[in-house]
Amino acid sequence: MDDLVGAGLLVPTGVEGVIGRSGTFERVLLGFDAYVEGITAGDGAEIVRFPPVLPRAQLETTGYLSSFPHLAGSVFSFAGSEEEALELAERAAGHTDWSDLQTVTEVMLTPAACYPVYPWVAGAGPLPPAGRLVDVACQCFRHEPSPDPARMQSFRMHEQVRIATADEVVEWHQGWVDRGGEILGAVGLETEAVVASDPFFGRAGRMLSVSQREQGLKLERVFPISSDRPTPIMSINYHQDHFGRDFDIGTGSGEVAHTACIGFGLERIALALFKQHGLDERAWPDDVRRLLGLAPEA
Amino acid sequence: MDDLVGAGLLVPTGVEGVIGRSGTFERVLLGFDAYVEGITAGDGAEIVRFPPVLPRAQLETTGYLSSFPHLAGSVFSFAGSEEEALELAERAAGHTDWSDLQTVTEVMLTPAACYPVYPWVAGAGPLPPAGRLVDVACQCFRHEPSPDPARMQSFRMHEQVRIATADEVVEWHQGWVDRGGEILGAVGLETEAVVASDPFFGRAGRMLSVSQREQGLKLERVFPISSDRPTPIMSINYHQDHFGRDFDIGTGSGEVAHTACIGFGLERIALALFKQHGLDERAWPDDVRRLLGLAPEA
Repeated sequence: MDDLVGAGLLVPTGVEGVIGRSGTFERVLLGFDAYVEGITAGDGAEIVRFPPVLPRAQLETTGYLSSFPHLAGSVFSFAGSEEEALELAERAAGHTDWSDLQTVTEVMLTPAACYPVYPWVAGAGPLPPAGRLVDVACQCFRHEPSPDPARMQSFRMHEQVRIATADEVVEWHQGWVDRGGEILGAVGLETEAVVASDPFFGRAGRMLSVSQREQGLKLERVFPISSDRPTPIMSINYHQDHFGRDFDIGTGSGEVAHTACIGFGLERIALALFKQHGLDERAWPDDVRRLLGLAPEA
Repeated sequence: MDDLVGAGLLVPTGVEGVIGRSGTFERVLLGFDAYVEGITAGDGAEIVRFPPVLPRAQLETTGYLSSFPHLAGSVFSFAGSEEEALELAERAAGHTDWSDLQTVTEVMLTPAACYPVYPWVAGAGPLPPAGRLVDVACQCFRHEPSPDPARMQSFRMHEQVRIATADEVVEWHQGWVDRGGEILGAVGLETEAVVASDPFFGRAGRMLSVSQREQGLKLERVFPISSDRPTPIMSINYHQDHFGRDFDIGTGSGEVAHTACIGFGLERIALALFKQHGLDERAWPDDVRRLLGLAPEA
Protein backbone atom coordinates (compact mmCIF):
# COMPACT_ATOMS: atom_id res chain seq x y z
CA MET A 1 0.00 0.00 0.00
CA ASP A 2 2.76 2.45 0.98
CA ASP A 3 4.54 1.88 -2.35
CA LEU A 4 1.34 2.47 -4.31
CA VAL A 5 0.54 5.64 -2.38
CA GLY A 6 4.14 6.81 -2.71
CA ALA A 7 3.95 6.31 -6.47
CA GLY A 8 0.77 8.41 -6.55
CA LEU A 9 -1.33 5.51 -7.83
CA LEU A 10 -3.60 5.16 -4.79
CA VAL A 11 -5.05 7.84 -2.50
CA PRO A 12 -5.98 6.82 1.05
CA THR A 13 -9.13 8.44 2.49
CA GLY A 14 -8.71 7.62 6.16
CA VAL A 15 -11.03 4.59 6.10
CA GLU A 16 -9.48 1.21 5.37
CA GLY A 17 -10.48 -0.20 2.01
CA VAL A 18 -12.00 3.09 0.78
CA ILE A 19 -9.33 4.24 -1.63
CA GLY A 20 -9.01 6.85 -4.37
CA ARG A 21 -7.27 6.06 -7.64
CA SER A 22 -5.01 8.18 -9.83
CA GLY A 23 -5.65 8.83 -13.50
CA THR A 24 -2.87 6.37 -14.36
CA PHE A 25 -4.38 3.62 -12.21
CA GLU A 26 -7.74 4.24 -13.88
CA ARG A 27 -6.24 4.12 -17.38
CA VAL A 28 -4.76 0.71 -16.60
CA LEU A 29 -7.99 -0.58 -15.04
CA LEU A 30 -10.21 0.69 -17.84
CA GLY A 31 -7.65 -0.51 -20.39
CA PHE A 32 -7.94 -4.05 -19.06
CA ASP A 33 -11.72 -3.74 -19.01
CA ALA A 34 -11.82 -2.64 -22.65
CA TYR A 35 -9.39 -5.44 -23.58
CA VAL A 36 -11.75 -8.06 -22.11
CA GLU A 37 -14.73 -6.38 -23.78
CA GLY A 38 -12.93 -6.68 -27.10
CA ILE A 39 -12.37 -10.40 -26.55
CA THR A 40 -15.92 -11.15 -25.44
CA ALA A 41 -17.64 -8.85 -27.96
CA GLY A 42 -18.28 -11.79 -30.28
CA ASP A 43 -20.08 -13.80 -27.59
CA GLY A 44 -23.24 -11.81 -28.19
CA ALA A 45 -23.96 -10.98 -24.57
CA GLU A 46 -26.69 -8.48 -23.77
CA ILE A 47 -25.11 -5.50 -22.05
CA VAL A 48 -26.78 -3.95 -19.02
CA ARG A 49 -25.44 -1.76 -16.24
CA PHE A 50 -26.96 -1.34 -12.79
CA PRO A 51 -26.14 1.33 -10.19
CA PRO A 52 -24.13 0.52 -7.04
CA VAL A 53 -27.34 0.22 -4.99
CA LEU A 54 -30.10 -2.33 -5.51
CA PRO A 55 -33.55 -2.94 -4.00
CA ARG A 56 -33.33 -4.36 -0.47
CA ALA A 57 -36.11 -6.83 -1.32
CA GLN A 58 -33.90 -8.38 -4.04
CA LEU A 59 -31.06 -9.12 -1.68
CA GLU A 60 -33.53 -10.48 0.90
CA THR A 61 -34.85 -12.86 -1.74
CA THR A 62 -31.40 -14.28 -2.55
CA GLY A 63 -30.56 -15.22 1.03
CA TYR A 64 -27.49 -12.96 0.92
CA LEU A 65 -28.36 -11.70 4.41
CA SER A 66 -28.32 -15.25 5.68
CA SER A 67 -24.97 -16.16 4.11
CA PHE A 68 -23.07 -12.86 4.33
CA PRO A 69 -24.76 -10.58 6.89
CA HIS A 70 -21.34 -9.25 7.97
CA LEU A 71 -20.46 -8.09 4.43
CA ALA A 72 -23.81 -6.57 3.43
CA GLY A 73 -24.19 -2.79 3.45
CA SER A 74 -27.67 -1.38 3.97
CA VAL A 75 -28.50 2.25 3.23
CA PHE A 76 -30.13 4.38 5.90
CA SER A 77 -31.28 7.99 5.68
CA PHE A 78 -33.02 10.69 7.70
CA ALA A 79 -36.82 10.93 7.74
CA GLY A 80 -37.40 12.95 10.91
CA SER A 81 -38.67 16.36 11.96
CA GLU A 82 -36.96 19.74 11.79
CA GLU A 83 -36.15 19.41 15.48
CA GLU A 84 -34.53 16.02 14.96
CA ALA A 85 -32.62 17.43 11.99
CA LEU A 86 -31.10 20.08 14.27
CA GLU A 87 -30.12 17.37 16.73
CA LEU A 88 -28.56 15.32 13.91
CA ALA A 89 -26.63 18.32 12.60
CA GLU A 90 -25.29 19.15 16.04
CA ARG A 91 -24.10 15.62 16.75
CA ALA A 92 -22.59 15.26 13.26
CA ALA A 93 -20.66 18.52 13.68
CA GLY A 94 -19.24 17.13 16.92
CA HIS A 95 -18.49 13.74 15.33
CA THR A 96 -20.65 11.96 17.93
CA ASP A 97 -23.04 9.11 17.18
CA TRP A 98 -26.21 10.12 15.31
CA SER A 99 -27.10 6.68 13.98
CA ASP A 100 -30.32 6.44 16.03
CA LEU A 101 -31.68 9.32 13.94
CA GLN A 102 -31.45 7.25 10.75
CA THR A 103 -34.06 4.89 9.30
CA VAL A 104 -33.61 2.14 6.76
CA THR A 105 -34.30 2.91 3.07
CA GLU A 106 -35.42 0.58 0.30
CA VAL A 107 -31.90 0.04 -1.03
CA MET A 108 -28.70 -1.79 -0.16
CA LEU A 109 -25.23 -1.63 -1.64
CA THR A 110 -24.70 -4.07 -4.50
CA PRO A 111 -22.38 -6.85 -3.27
CA ALA A 112 -21.64 -8.36 -6.70
CA ALA A 113 -22.40 -7.10 -10.20
CA CYS A 114 -24.68 -10.00 -11.12
CA TYR A 115 -27.29 -9.75 -8.32
CA PRO A 116 -29.64 -7.34 -10.13
CA VAL A 117 -29.48 -9.52 -13.27
CA TYR A 118 -31.56 -12.42 -11.93
CA PRO A 119 -34.73 -10.51 -11.02
CA TRP A 120 -34.45 -8.59 -14.31
CA VAL A 121 -34.22 -11.83 -16.32
CA ALA A 122 -37.01 -13.39 -14.27
CA GLY A 123 -39.26 -10.44 -15.06
CA ALA A 124 -38.97 -11.14 -18.79
CA GLY A 125 -40.70 -14.51 -18.46
CA PRO A 126 -39.43 -17.94 -19.62
CA LEU A 127 -35.96 -18.00 -21.16
CA PRO A 128 -35.50 -18.01 -24.95
CA PRO A 129 -34.45 -21.41 -26.42
CA ALA A 130 -30.70 -20.84 -26.03
CA GLY A 131 -30.99 -19.21 -22.63
CA ARG A 132 -29.41 -15.83 -21.98
CA LEU A 133 -25.93 -14.41 -21.69
CA VAL A 134 -25.61 -11.06 -19.92
CA ASP A 135 -22.63 -8.72 -19.59
CA VAL A 136 -22.76 -6.60 -16.46
CA ALA A 137 -20.36 -4.40 -14.51
CA CYS A 138 -20.84 -2.55 -11.27
CA GLN A 139 -19.30 -0.79 -8.33
CA CYS A 140 -19.61 -3.37 -5.54
CA PHE A 141 -19.40 -3.07 -1.74
CA ARG A 142 -18.43 -5.47 1.00
CA HIS A 143 -17.98 -4.33 4.55
CA GLU A 144 -14.58 -5.81 5.34
CA PRO A 145 -12.21 -2.99 6.35
CA SER A 146 -8.62 -4.10 5.73
CA PRO A 147 -5.27 -2.36 5.28
CA ASP A 148 -4.62 -4.63 2.28
CA PRO A 149 -5.12 -2.61 -0.95
CA ALA A 150 -6.20 -5.88 -2.59
CA ARG A 151 -9.18 -6.04 -0.23
CA MET A 152 -11.12 -2.85 -0.85
CA GLN A 153 -14.58 -2.27 0.60
CA SER A 154 -15.66 -0.59 -2.64
CA PHE A 155 -14.44 -2.02 -5.93
CA ARG A 156 -15.48 -2.71 -9.53
CA MET A 157 -16.41 -6.08 -10.92
CA HIS A 158 -17.05 -6.96 -14.57
CA GLU A 159 -19.07 -10.13 -15.02
CA GLN A 160 -20.68 -12.33 -17.61
CA VAL A 161 -23.72 -14.29 -16.49
CA ARG A 162 -25.14 -17.39 -18.18
CA ILE A 163 -28.75 -18.36 -17.50
CA ALA A 164 -29.94 -21.51 -19.24
CA THR A 165 -30.42 -25.27 -18.75
CA ALA A 166 -28.05 -27.12 -16.40
CA ASP A 167 -26.10 -28.68 -19.31
CA GLU A 168 -25.65 -25.39 -21.14
CA VAL A 169 -24.57 -23.59 -18.00
CA VAL A 170 -22.07 -26.26 -16.97
CA GLU A 171 -20.50 -26.26 -20.43
CA TRP A 172 -20.18 -22.45 -20.43
CA HIS A 173 -18.78 -22.46 -16.88
CA GLN A 174 -16.17 -25.10 -17.75
CA GLY A 175 -15.11 -23.20 -20.86
CA TRP A 176 -14.26 -20.12 -18.83
CA VAL A 177 -11.75 -21.91 -16.59
CA ASP A 178 -9.12 -22.00 -19.35
CA ARG A 179 -10.38 -18.93 -21.20
CA GLY A 180 -9.95 -16.80 -18.09
CA GLY A 181 -6.39 -18.04 -17.69
CA GLU A 182 -5.57 -17.18 -21.30
CA ILE A 183 -7.02 -13.67 -21.05
CA LEU A 184 -5.00 -12.93 -17.90
CA GLY A 185 -1.89 -14.70 -19.22
CA ALA A 186 -1.80 -12.56 -22.36
CA VAL A 187 -1.22 -9.45 -20.25
CA GLY A 188 1.47 -11.15 -18.21
CA LEU A 189 -0.60 -12.44 -15.30
CA GLU A 190 0.17 -16.13 -14.88
CA THR A 191 -2.56 -17.45 -12.60
CA GLU A 192 -3.56 -20.74 -11.10
CA ALA A 193 -7.18 -21.96 -11.03
CA VAL A 194 -8.00 -23.12 -7.53
CA VAL A 195 -11.12 -24.55 -5.95
CA ALA A 196 -12.52 -21.88 -3.62
CA SER A 197 -15.43 -21.07 -1.37
CA ASP A 198 -17.34 -17.98 -0.37
CA PRO A 199 -16.78 -16.44 3.09
CA PHE A 200 -20.09 -17.67 4.57
CA PHE A 201 -20.87 -16.32 8.03
CA GLY A 202 -20.53 -18.25 11.28
CA ARG A 203 -20.38 -21.93 12.22
CA ALA A 204 -23.11 -23.03 9.80
CA GLY A 205 -21.30 -20.99 7.16
CA ARG A 206 -18.15 -23.05 7.59
CA MET A 207 -20.10 -26.14 6.64
CA LEU A 208 -21.50 -24.39 3.58
CA SER A 209 -17.95 -23.50 2.55
CA VAL A 210 -16.82 -27.12 2.88
CA SER A 211 -19.77 -28.34 0.82
CA GLN A 212 -19.14 -25.68 -1.85
CA ARG A 213 -15.51 -26.79 -2.12
CA GLU A 214 -16.40 -30.49 -2.28
CA GLN A 215 -18.76 -29.87 -5.17
CA GLY A 216 -16.22 -27.67 -6.99
CA LEU A 217 -18.84 -24.98 -7.59
CA LYS A 218 -16.48 -22.04 -7.21
CA LEU A 219 -13.12 -21.65 -8.92
CA GLU A 220 -10.84 -18.68 -8.62
CA ARG A 221 -7.84 -17.55 -10.59
CA VAL A 222 -5.33 -16.29 -8.05
CA PHE A 223 -2.25 -14.08 -8.25
CA PRO A 224 0.10 -12.96 -5.43
CA ILE A 225 -0.57 -9.22 -5.18
CA SER A 226 0.36 -7.95 -1.76
CA SER A 227 1.77 -10.95 0.07
CA ASP A 228 2.84 -14.50 -0.63
CA ARG A 229 -0.72 -15.66 -0.18
CA PRO A 230 -2.33 -15.35 -3.63
CA THR A 231 -5.39 -13.12 -4.05
CA PRO A 232 -8.32 -14.10 -6.26
CA ILE A 233 -8.50 -11.75 -9.27
CA MET A 234 -11.13 -13.67 -11.22
CA SER A 235 -13.89 -15.99 -10.09
CA ILE A 236 -15.86 -18.63 -11.97
CA ASN A 237 -19.03 -19.63 -10.15
CA TYR A 238 -21.71 -22.22 -10.81
CA HIS A 239 -24.82 -21.47 -8.74
CA GLN A 240 -26.77 -24.59 -9.84
CA ASP A 241 -30.48 -23.66 -9.54
CA HIS A 242 -29.99 -21.29 -6.56
CA PHE A 243 -30.97 -18.05 -8.32
CA GLY A 244 -33.36 -19.86 -10.65
CA ARG A 245 -35.38 -20.97 -7.61
CA ASP A 246 -35.03 -17.68 -5.71
CA PHE A 247 -36.42 -15.62 -8.57
CA ASP A 248 -38.50 -18.30 -10.30
CA ILE A 249 -36.62 -18.28 -13.60
CA GLY A 250 -37.86 -21.00 -15.95
CA THR A 251 -36.32 -22.43 -19.12
CA GLY A 252 -38.37 -22.64 -22.30
CA SER A 253 -39.30 -26.23 -21.44
CA GLY A 254 -40.47 -25.33 -17.96
CA GLU A 255 -37.51 -26.47 -15.83
CA VAL A 256 -35.87 -24.27 -13.21
CA ALA A 257 -33.02 -22.38 -14.89
CA HIS A 258 -29.44 -22.89 -13.77
CA THR A 259 -27.01 -19.99 -13.62
CA ALA A 260 -23.28 -19.35 -13.55
CA CYS A 261 -21.19 -16.22 -13.61
CA ILE A 262 -17.59 -15.27 -14.20
CA GLY A 263 -16.18 -12.08 -12.79
CA PHE A 264 -13.05 -10.01 -13.17
CA GLY A 265 -12.07 -8.00 -10.08
CA LEU A 266 -10.87 -4.87 -11.84
CA GLU A 267 -9.02 -3.12 -9.00
CA ARG A 268 -7.27 -6.36 -8.09
CA ILE A 269 -6.27 -6.99 -11.70
CA ALA A 270 -4.88 -3.45 -11.99
CA LEU A 271 -2.94 -4.04 -8.75
CA ALA A 272 -1.67 -7.37 -10.13
CA LEU A 273 -0.49 -5.64 -13.31
CA PHE A 274 1.46 -3.05 -11.29
CA LYS A 275 2.89 -5.87 -9.14
CA GLN A 276 3.95 -7.92 -12.17
CA HIS A 277 5.24 -5.18 -14.45
CA GLY A 278 6.32 -2.47 -12.01
CA LEU A 279 4.90 0.82 -10.72
CA ASP A 280 5.78 2.82 -13.86
CA GLU A 281 3.39 1.66 -16.56
CA ARG A 282 5.45 3.45 -19.22
CA ALA A 283 8.11 0.78 -18.74
CA TRP A 284 5.75 -2.17 -19.18
CA PRO A 285 6.32 -4.66 -22.04
CA ASP A 286 5.12 -3.29 -25.37
CA ASP A 287 2.70 -6.14 -26.03
CA VAL A 288 1.02 -5.64 -22.65
CA ARG A 289 0.78 -1.88 -23.21
CA ARG A 290 -0.70 -2.51 -26.64
CA LEU A 291 -3.34 -4.94 -25.35
CA LEU A 292 -4.29 -2.51 -22.58
CA GLY A 293 -4.55 0.39 -25.02
CA LEU A 294 -1.99 2.47 -23.10
CA ALA A 295 -0.96 5.24 -25.46
CA PRO A 296 2.74 5.36 -26.33
CA GLU A 297 4.50 8.09 -24.39
CA ALA A 298 5.67 11.11 -26.34
CA MET B 1 -39.97 6.69 -18.39
CA ASP B 2 -42.35 4.29 -20.15
CA ASP B 3 -40.97 5.26 -23.57
CA LEU B 4 -37.39 4.74 -22.41
CA VAL B 5 -38.21 1.36 -20.87
CA GLY B 6 -40.20 0.38 -23.96
CA ALA B 7 -37.22 1.24 -26.17
CA GLY B 8 -35.02 -0.97 -24.00
CA LEU B 9 -32.85 1.95 -22.89
CA LEU B 10 -33.75 1.87 -19.20
CA VAL B 11 -34.45 -1.07 -16.91
CA PRO B 12 -36.63 -0.47 -13.83
CA THR B 13 -35.65 -2.36 -10.67
CA GLY B 14 -38.78 -1.92 -8.59
CA VAL B 15 -37.40 0.98 -6.54
CA GLU B 16 -37.99 4.49 -7.85
CA GLY B 17 -34.83 6.19 -9.05
CA VAL B 18 -32.75 2.98 -9.00
CA ILE B 19 -32.56 2.21 -12.69
CA GLY B 20 -30.53 -0.09 -14.93
CA ARG B 21 -29.16 1.10 -18.25
CA SER B 22 -28.82 -0.68 -21.58
CA GLY B 23 -25.57 -1.00 -23.48
CA THR B 24 -26.78 1.67 -25.91
CA PHE B 25 -27.61 4.12 -23.13
CA GLU B 26 -24.16 3.50 -21.65
CA ARG B 27 -22.44 4.05 -24.98
CA VAL B 28 -24.13 7.43 -25.31
CA LEU B 29 -23.34 8.39 -21.71
CA LEU B 30 -19.70 7.31 -21.90
CA GLY B 31 -19.43 8.88 -25.35
CA PHE B 32 -20.43 12.25 -23.93
CA ASP B 33 -18.05 11.75 -21.03
CA ALA B 34 -15.15 11.02 -23.38
CA TYR B 35 -16.12 14.02 -25.54
CA VAL B 36 -15.85 16.36 -22.53
CA GLU B 37 -12.60 14.72 -21.47
CA GLY B 38 -11.21 15.43 -24.91
CA ILE B 39 -12.17 19.10 -24.64
CA THR B 40 -10.78 19.56 -21.13
CA ALA B 41 -7.64 17.46 -21.63
CA GLY B 42 -5.60 20.56 -22.32
CA ASP B 43 -6.60 22.21 -19.04
CA GLY B 44 -4.03 20.14 -17.18
CA ALA B 45 -6.32 18.95 -14.41
CA GLU B 46 -5.06 16.25 -12.05
CA ILE B 47 -7.26 13.19 -12.48
CA VAL B 48 -8.45 11.27 -9.44
CA ARG B 49 -11.34 8.86 -8.94
CA PHE B 50 -12.99 8.04 -5.64
CA PRO B 51 -15.38 5.15 -4.89
CA PRO B 52 -19.13 5.74 -4.36
CA VAL B 53 -18.67 5.68 -0.58
CA LEU B 54 -16.63 8.14 1.48
CA PRO B 55 -15.61 8.43 5.14
CA ARG B 56 -18.52 9.48 7.35
CA ALA B 57 -16.23 11.89 9.19
CA GLN B 58 -15.61 13.82 5.94
CA LEU B 59 -19.28 14.45 5.33
CA GLU B 60 -19.75 15.41 8.99
CA THR B 61 -16.98 17.99 8.57
CA THR B 62 -18.64 19.64 5.56
CA GLY B 63 -21.95 20.24 7.28
CA TYR B 64 -23.74 18.16 4.61
CA LEU B 65 -25.80 16.52 7.36
CA SER B 66 -26.96 19.93 8.48
CA SER B 67 -27.93 21.15 5.01
CA PHE B 68 -29.16 17.93 3.36
CA PRO B 69 -29.94 15.33 6.06
CA HIS B 70 -32.89 14.06 3.98
CA LEU B 71 -30.68 13.30 0.94
CA ALA B 72 -27.70 11.74 2.72
CA GLY B 73 -27.31 7.97 2.64
CA SER B 74 -25.42 6.35 5.52
CA VAL B 75 -24.15 2.78 5.31
CA PHE B 76 -25.06 0.32 8.03
CA SER B 77 -23.99 -3.30 8.41
CA PHE B 78 -24.29 -6.28 10.76
CA ALA B 79 -21.90 -6.71 13.67
CA GLY B 80 -23.85 -9.06 15.93
CA SER B 81 -23.70 -12.62 17.24
CA GLU B 82 -24.50 -15.89 15.45
CA GLU B 83 -27.85 -15.90 17.20
CA GLU B 84 -28.66 -12.40 15.97
CA ALA B 85 -27.53 -13.40 12.49
CA LEU B 86 -30.13 -16.18 12.49
CA GLU B 87 -32.77 -13.69 13.58
CA LEU B 88 -31.69 -11.30 10.79
CA ALA B 89 -31.78 -14.05 8.18
CA GLU B 90 -35.24 -15.16 9.23
CA ARG B 91 -36.71 -11.68 9.14
CA ALA B 92 -35.01 -10.90 5.81
CA ALA B 93 -36.40 -14.08 4.25
CA GLY B 94 -39.87 -12.96 5.36
CA HIS B 95 -39.29 -9.38 4.11
CA THR B 96 -39.99 -7.99 7.59
CA ASP B 97 -38.02 -5.19 9.24
CA TRP B 98 -34.50 -6.17 10.39
CA SER B 99 -33.09 -2.65 10.58
CA ASP B 100 -32.63 -2.78 14.39
CA LEU B 101 -30.00 -5.49 13.81
CA GLN B 102 -27.79 -3.08 11.83
CA THR B 103 -25.12 -0.73 13.14
CA VAL B 104 -23.60 2.28 11.48
CA THR B 105 -20.29 1.86 9.60
CA GLU B 106 -17.55 4.41 8.96
CA VAL B 107 -18.80 5.24 5.45
CA MET B 108 -21.61 7.13 3.73
CA LEU B 109 -22.68 7.28 0.12
CA THR B 110 -20.92 10.02 -1.86
CA PRO B 111 -23.48 12.77 -2.59
CA ALA B 112 -21.39 14.67 -5.18
CA ALA B 113 -18.17 13.72 -6.91
CA CYS B 114 -16.15 16.59 -5.47
CA TYR B 115 -16.62 15.91 -1.73
CA PRO B 116 -13.60 13.60 -1.30
CA VAL B 117 -11.40 16.08 -3.18
CA TYR B 118 -11.24 18.73 -0.45
CA PRO B 119 -9.82 16.59 2.38
CA TRP B 120 -7.39 15.03 -0.12
CA VAL B 121 -6.16 18.46 -1.24
CA ALA B 122 -6.02 19.68 2.35
CA GLY B 123 -3.84 16.71 3.30
CA ALA B 124 -1.19 17.80 0.79
CA GLY B 125 -0.49 21.06 2.67
CA PRO B 126 -0.57 24.63 1.30
CA LEU B 127 -1.61 25.00 -2.33
CA PRO B 128 1.01 25.43 -5.07
CA PRO B 129 1.30 29.02 -6.45
CA ALA B 130 -1.35 28.57 -9.17
CA GLY B 131 -3.71 26.59 -6.95
CA ARG B 132 -5.06 23.24 -8.07
CA LEU B 133 -7.44 21.97 -10.74
CA VAL B 134 -8.84 18.47 -10.19
CA ASP B 135 -10.87 16.26 -12.52
CA VAL B 136 -13.11 13.84 -10.64
CA ALA B 137 -16.02 11.55 -11.48
CA CYS B 138 -18.13 9.37 -9.25
CA GLN B 139 -21.29 7.39 -8.75
CA CYS B 140 -23.35 9.66 -6.49
CA PHE B 141 -26.39 8.99 -4.29
CA ARG B 142 -29.22 11.15 -3.07
CA HIS B 143 -32.19 9.69 -1.27
CA GLU B 144 -35.03 11.24 -3.24
CA PRO B 145 -37.19 8.45 -4.70
CA SER B 146 -39.06 9.77 -7.74
CA PRO B 147 -40.77 8.25 -10.77
CA ASP B 148 -38.99 10.85 -12.94
CA PRO B 149 -36.10 9.15 -14.81
CA ALA B 150 -34.29 12.50 -14.69
CA ARG B 151 -34.21 12.28 -10.88
CA MET B 152 -32.34 9.08 -10.11
CA GLN B 153 -31.22 8.19 -6.59
CA SER B 154 -27.96 6.80 -7.98
CA PHE B 155 -26.27 8.60 -10.86
CA ARG B 156 -22.89 9.62 -12.25
CA MET B 157 -21.39 13.05 -12.08
CA HIS B 158 -18.22 14.27 -13.80
CA GLU B 159 -16.73 17.36 -12.21
CA GLN B 160 -13.83 19.74 -12.39
CA VAL B 161 -12.83 21.43 -9.16
CA ARG B 162 -10.77 24.61 -8.82
CA ILE B 163 -9.04 25.34 -5.53
CA ALA B 164 -7.09 28.59 -5.41
CA THR B 165 -7.33 32.24 -4.35
CA ALA B 166 -10.72 33.97 -4.49
CA ASP B 167 -9.81 35.89 -7.67
CA GLU B 168 -8.55 32.83 -9.49
CA VAL B 169 -11.56 30.77 -8.53
CA VAL B 170 -14.08 33.45 -9.53
CA GLU B 171 -12.41 33.87 -12.92
CA TRP B 172 -12.45 30.09 -13.55
CA HIS B 173 -16.07 29.83 -12.38
CA GLN B 174 -17.18 32.65 -14.68
CA GLY B 175 -15.38 31.11 -17.64
CA TRP B 176 -17.34 27.89 -17.32
CA VAL B 177 -20.75 29.56 -17.67
CA ASP B 178 -20.31 30.05 -21.41
CA ARG B 179 -17.95 27.14 -21.93
CA GLY B 180 -20.51 24.72 -20.50
CA GLY B 181 -23.14 26.07 -22.85
CA GLU B 182 -20.85 25.64 -25.86
CA ILE B 183 -19.96 22.04 -24.93
CA LEU B 184 -23.62 21.10 -24.57
CA GLY B 185 -24.69 23.13 -27.60
CA ALA B 186 -22.23 21.33 -29.89
CA VAL B 187 -24.08 18.05 -29.31
CA GLY B 188 -27.44 19.67 -29.92
CA LEU B 189 -28.42 20.56 -26.36
CA GLU B 190 -29.41 24.22 -26.32
CA THR B 191 -29.48 25.19 -22.66
CA GLU B 192 -30.13 28.24 -20.60
CA ALA B 193 -27.94 29.28 -17.66
CA VAL B 194 -30.17 30.05 -14.68
CA VAL B 195 -29.45 31.14 -11.15
CA ALA B 196 -30.22 28.20 -8.89
CA SER B 197 -30.05 27.04 -5.30
CA ASP B 198 -29.44 23.78 -3.50
CA PRO B 199 -32.40 21.93 -1.89
CA PHE B 200 -31.48 22.84 1.69
CA PHE B 201 -33.58 21.10 4.36
CA GLY B 202 -36.38 22.70 6.34
CA ARG B 203 -37.35 26.28 7.19
CA ALA B 204 -33.81 27.48 7.86
CA GLY B 205 -32.85 25.82 4.59
CA ARG B 206 -35.28 27.98 2.64
CA MET B 207 -33.44 31.06 3.86
CA LEU B 208 -30.12 29.55 2.84
CA SER B 209 -31.54 28.95 -0.64
CA VAL B 210 -32.69 32.55 -0.93
CA SER B 211 -29.28 33.81 0.15
CA GLN B 212 -27.51 31.47 -2.29
CA ARG B 213 -29.66 32.80 -5.14
CA GLU B 214 -29.16 36.43 -4.18
CA GLN B 215 -25.41 36.00 -4.24
CA GLY B 216 -25.53 34.11 -7.56
CA LEU B 217 -23.28 31.37 -6.22
CA LYS B 218 -24.93 28.53 -8.09
CA LEU B 219 -25.75 28.47 -11.77
CA GLU B 220 -27.31 25.61 -13.64
CA ARG B 221 -27.66 24.83 -17.31
CA VAL B 222 -31.14 23.44 -17.75
CA PHE B 223 -32.87 21.41 -20.46
CA PRO B 224 -36.48 20.12 -20.61
CA ILE B 225 -36.05 16.34 -20.30
CA SER B 226 -39.20 14.79 -18.97
CA SER B 227 -41.63 17.64 -18.60
CA ASP B 228 -41.99 21.27 -19.48
CA ARG B 229 -40.09 22.20 -16.36
CA PRO B 230 -36.42 22.18 -17.36
CA THR B 231 -34.03 19.87 -15.49
CA PRO B 232 -30.49 20.94 -14.55
CA ILE B 233 -27.98 18.90 -16.56
CA MET B 234 -24.89 20.87 -15.57
CA SER B 235 -24.09 22.94 -12.51
CA ILE B 236 -21.53 25.66 -11.91
CA ASN B 237 -20.94 26.32 -8.23
CA TYR B 238 -18.85 28.84 -6.32
CA HIS B 239 -18.42 27.74 -2.70
CA GLN B 240 -16.48 30.83 -1.58
CA ASP B 241 -14.29 29.71 1.36
CA HIS B 242 -16.78 27.08 2.64
CA PHE B 243 -14.66 23.99 1.95
CA GLY B 244 -11.43 25.90 2.49
CA ARG B 245 -12.53 26.60 6.07
CA ASP B 246 -14.06 23.15 6.68
CA PHE B 247 -10.87 21.35 5.74
CA ASP B 248 -8.34 24.08 6.50
CA ILE B 249 -7.00 24.48 2.97
CA GLY B 250 -4.54 27.36 2.71
CA THR B 251 -3.15 29.19 -0.31
CA GLY B 252 0.60 29.60 -0.72
CA SER B 253 0.35 33.05 0.86
CA GLY B 254 -1.54 31.74 3.89
CA GLU B 255 -5.11 32.80 3.07
CA VAL B 256 -8.06 30.44 3.25
CA ALA B 257 -8.51 28.87 -0.18
CA HIS B 258 -11.67 29.44 -2.18
CA THR B 259 -13.21 26.65 -4.24
CA ALA B 260 -15.61 26.18 -7.13
CA CYS B 261 -16.76 23.16 -9.09
CA ILE B 262 -18.55 22.47 -12.33
CA GLY B 263 -20.38 19.20 -12.83
CA PHE B 264 -22.00 17.34 -15.70
CA GLY B 265 -24.89 15.08 -14.68
CA LEU B 266 -24.16 12.20 -17.03
CA GLU B 267 -27.44 10.26 -16.85
CA ARG B 268 -29.41 13.47 -17.28
CA ILE B 269 -27.31 14.51 -20.27
CA ALA B 270 -27.80 11.08 -21.88
CA LEU B 271 -31.55 11.45 -21.27
CA ALA B 272 -31.47 14.95 -22.77
CA LEU B 273 -29.69 13.60 -25.87
CA PHE B 274 -32.37 10.93 -26.34
CA LYS B 275 -35.06 13.57 -25.81
CA GLN B 276 -33.50 15.96 -28.32
CA HIS B 277 -32.44 13.54 -31.04
CA GLY B 278 -34.87 10.62 -30.61
CA LEU B 279 -34.82 7.18 -29.01
CA ASP B 280 -32.88 5.55 -31.88
CA GLU B 281 -29.34 6.84 -31.63
CA ARG B 282 -28.51 5.44 -35.07
CA ALA B 283 -30.69 8.17 -36.54
CA TRP B 284 -29.00 11.04 -34.73
CA PRO B 285 -27.28 13.82 -36.71
CA ASP B 286 -23.89 12.74 -38.04
CA ASP B 287 -21.98 15.52 -36.31
CA VAL B 288 -23.48 14.61 -32.94
CA ARG B 289 -22.71 10.92 -33.46
CA ARG B 290 -19.16 11.82 -34.44
CA LEU B 291 -18.59 13.99 -31.36
CA LEU B 292 -19.99 11.25 -29.12
CA GLY B 293 -17.81 8.60 -30.73
CA LEU B 294 -20.82 6.47 -31.70
CA ALA B 295 -19.56 4.00 -34.27
CA PRO B 296 -21.16 4.28 -37.71
CA GLU B 297 -23.75 1.55 -38.20
CA ALA B 298 -22.97 -1.23 -40.66
